[in-house]
Amino acid sequence: MKTYRYEENPIITPEDVVPHREDFEVIGAFNAGVAEYNGEILMLLRVAERPISDDPSIVKAPIFNAKTNKLEIIRLSADDERYDFTDPRTIRYAGEPDSFAYLTSLSYLRLARSKDGRHFHIEPDPFIYPSRDLETYGIEDPRITQIGDTYYIYYSAASSVGVGESLVSTKNWQNVTYHGMIFAPENKDVLIFPEKINGKYYALHRPVPKSVGSPEIWLAESDNLLYWGNHKHLIGLRPGKWDDGRIGGGAVPIKTDKGWLELYHGASTDHRYCMGAVLVDLEDPSKVIARSEFPLLEPEADYEVNGFFGNVVFSCGAIVEGDVVKMYYGVADTSMACVELSLQGILDSLFTMKTI
Amino acid sequence: MKTYRYEENPIITPEDVVPHREDFEVIGAFNAGVAEYNGEILMLLRVAERPISDDPSIVKAPIFNAKTNKLEIIRLSADDERYDFTDPRTIRYAGEPDSFAYLTSLSYLRLARSKDGRHFHIEPDPFIYPSRDLETYGIEDPRITQIGDTYYIYYSAASSVGVGESLVSTKNWQNVTYHGMIFAPENKDVLIFPEKINGKYYALHRPVPKSVGSPEIWLAESDNLLYWGNHKHLIGLRPGKWDDGRIGGGAVPIKTDKGWLELYHGASTDHRYCMGAVLVDLEDPSKVIARSEFPLLEPEADYEVNGFFGNVVFSCGAIVEGDVVKMYYGVADTSMACVELSLQGILDSLFTMKTI
Repeated sequence: MKTYRYEENPIITPEDVVPHREDFEVIGAFNAGVAEYNGEILMLLRVAERPISDDPSIVKAPIFNAKTNKLEIIRLSADDERYDFTDPRTIRYAGEPDSFAYLTSLSYLRLARSKDGRHFHIEPDPFIYPSRDLETYGIEDPRITQIGDTYYIYYSAASSVGVGESLVSTKNWQNVTYHGMIFAPENKDVLIFPEKINGKYYALHRPVPKSVGSPEIWLAESDNLLYWGNHKHLIGLRPGKWDDGRIGGGAVPIKTDKGWLELYHGASTDHRYCMGAVLVDLEDPSKVIARSEFPLLEPEADYEVNGFFGNVVFSCGAIVEGDVVKMYYGVADTSMACVELSLQGILDSLFTMKTI
Repeated sequence: MKTYRYEENPIITPEDVVPHREDFEVIGAFNAGVAEYNGEILMLLRVAERPISDDPSIVKAPIFNAKTNKLEIIRLSADDERYDFTDPRTIRYAGEPDSFAYLTSLSYLRLARSKDGRHFHIEPDPFIYPSRDLETYGIEDPRITQIGDTYYIYYSAASSVGVGESLVSTKNWQNVTYHGMIFAPENKDVLIFPEKINGKYYALHRPVPKSVGSPEIWLAESDNLLYWGNHKHLIGLRPGKWDDGRIGGGAVPIKTDKGWLELYHGASTDHRYCMGAVLVDLEDPSKVIARSEFPLLEPEADYEVNGFFGNVVFSCGAIVEGDVVKMYYGVADTSMACVELSLQGILDSLFTMKTI
């Protein structure tokens, strides 16, 4: 697969972002949702910030208190044996590798605007900031679906009771309406199709079941975007392939002659995140037509391999212009980058199964 | 709390149920949903059957194949070190106590009818049998909400991709319409309120998140019973109390002057299942008014303490006649029993906090 990574990559780094508090530092500006508005390309960045720490014996975890509307800082001793601090993203209970107690940073959503899609101006204030009981650990990885003149923005809402997916909407990128949590925990990586199919809205989602099953992609339907049901399992992990650890939807599905094209992320069991594609039927998105044997994009550039959590390319949005798919993607849980792919090339790769 | 357990308890045992196949044995007839129809009390039993095994060195797991419409039997060697056979209900991967690979029995739903609520006639055939990809490991723990002349039956649907909650409906207890999976994995213990509240349907549900959070009770809303959203966390575990391990809704919420009364189950961290109550606001079921400090019912009778999985009382339905709450409940994952409680007594117990 031919890929054209922008010379400007990474197009946004944490150094470009002024922290929203003086006692915090920005450690990530990544996994942005993407939209077009008033002739500009918007990126809704996930900005991750953490309390500045000058004492390496103390690990801090920021938590938003919805009752007081303030951030609180949990302080843990780095040699507290009840905890496992080996994952830079989370603080786990010792001996419980599949779950976490706290996150080491607080994520919120911040807007960046561009005329050319390569050079972005980052707004000085958060666009959506945690504000509810279900968001005390932060909000993450937004996707944006435009339907008519309304932009539906949905993101992971994390708190001590779980990680689910919540929905807001805006028409003007100033006033935002909250619509509640649309997918209950544990769920992430929701993608709402940009139009109704045979009278129904559809979404991809990615439950994380505990007792049985894996982090895989499901399909749901709705008649109002707020309430969802008729859940169906769409695609699963593929042992021995690039996506044998976890998968989840990436960009909003792209309508093509051949079907709805979804750019999704797949991680291997050793946490290497790549991007691939799955094609589903135009009339019945529960029918899978084809799926990438090999990744369309994998971590190769230095900024993709090295960072806060390295070896990650993770897209939450793309802009399509003719045959050009401008896939914006987070790199190494740190920065943003963009790659151009050929739409026809992606489709061809799905059918020839020769993607390298 | 004064309790009147029926002299006939257990009112149905596995010995009362003829297996649906000659090569299978019934190991459980429990956790029944309850309804009233044509002057009779119906119990929709969860019947668990397993392949008869005469070789203790082989552990068998039944799986429904939705493509061939046949049951298949997985055979595992009892000394296969990849597996952990210590839980009689499940076959786990060794070293992974929070998840399972297979179930040791296949559950389906079977109807029992009674004139007096104490003596039941069990229908000879399954009423709802696994029939779909999402039901290959069986269907479990039905609840029944009557709205008008329609009975909405919802149950846990288990398969290798997860355990979610699916919905069917019937008007005559003969023809059944399937409405799909209404709560995606991992979810169980769904209860649909029996009427709209301020124009919306409400349900309790019990997600099981993996990364963060516990098996706790959430609230969702709907306008058509098929699609659900606006998920809110309702009540959580209470460390050190009887419900500090896992909780989930039990019977369909009962409308009282004081609020909607939900009889729910709570298990301690050592898997002792009791029944208690939570009262939520009549107009806004997201507002919790009161909750049992102590169980209303706990495993004490021999048939509650001993069985396939002992120390369990687990209700999926109750009939209310005046002040009398006839709470039907599964015991020890084996049989069915019934206890009568005073509705006023339950409400009083919630406010005085003296429930023993």
